[in-house]
Amino acid sequence: MRIVHSEDLPPQEANEEGATKTTVRWLISRPEGAPNFSMRLFEVAPGGHTPLHTHPWEHEVFVLDGDVEVMTAEGPRPLAAGDAVLVLPEERHQFRNTGDGTARFLCIIPLPAE
Amino acid sequence: MRIVHSEDLPPQEANEEGATKTTVRWLISRPEGAPNFSMRLFEVAPGGHTPLHTHPWEHEVFVLDGDVEVMTAEGPRPLAAGDAVLVLPEERHQFRNTGDGTARFLCIIPLPAE
Repeated sequence: MRIVHSEDLPPQEANEEGATKTTVRWLISRPEGAPNFSMRLFEVAPGGHTPLHTHPWEHEVFVLDGDVEVMTAEGPRPLAAGDAVLVLPEERHQFRNTGDGTARFLCIIPLPAE
Repeated sequence: MRIVHSEDLPPQEANEEGATKTTVRWLISRPEGAPNFSMRLFEVAPGGHTPLHTHPWEHEVFVLDGDVEVMTAEGPRPLAAGDAVLVLPEERHQFRNTGDGTARFLCIIPLPAE
């Protein structure tokens, strides 16, 4: 069993093109022994956002706090703490902080093939 | 894309033998179109706990709030909000509410083979 205190992990800048004011902590992934999927904690500062992009894998997101909206094919949708979002493979998406405080959400993805 | 407000889902009693004072909401799973894993929200009332058991699949847990401890092979370990726990396949485990309020945590598991 592996127990990780998320605050003990240094946040890493999300340096993917199109991301701004966003950090990520990899809570559980292959180095910790995860067999199938990775749990990441994102923190987005006011005005920040993740990339507007698509990829072949899904996201399962859980909003912890803050004012977040997700860009969907039909436009932006506001989210609140306690909301869960399934982004299907190849669905275009972006998470944006629309508030004045830090927004935090978990994002779980499948492990890439080794 | 599928957005689920967790409070809109009715909590289901966790009726597995050994579970007490515990409910679960399946936030994202196969019916929502999840390709690989399911996200569940557990709520455990004071004095409640999940079963002490093992199974062939892993858990990835994130503690949202409350006083929780997890039983490990080395005994109980206290957890706090923001802690992530990887329970490996076949590891014995149990989550217990040791506090006076409701404890809440997410638990992600792989989808069973169809």
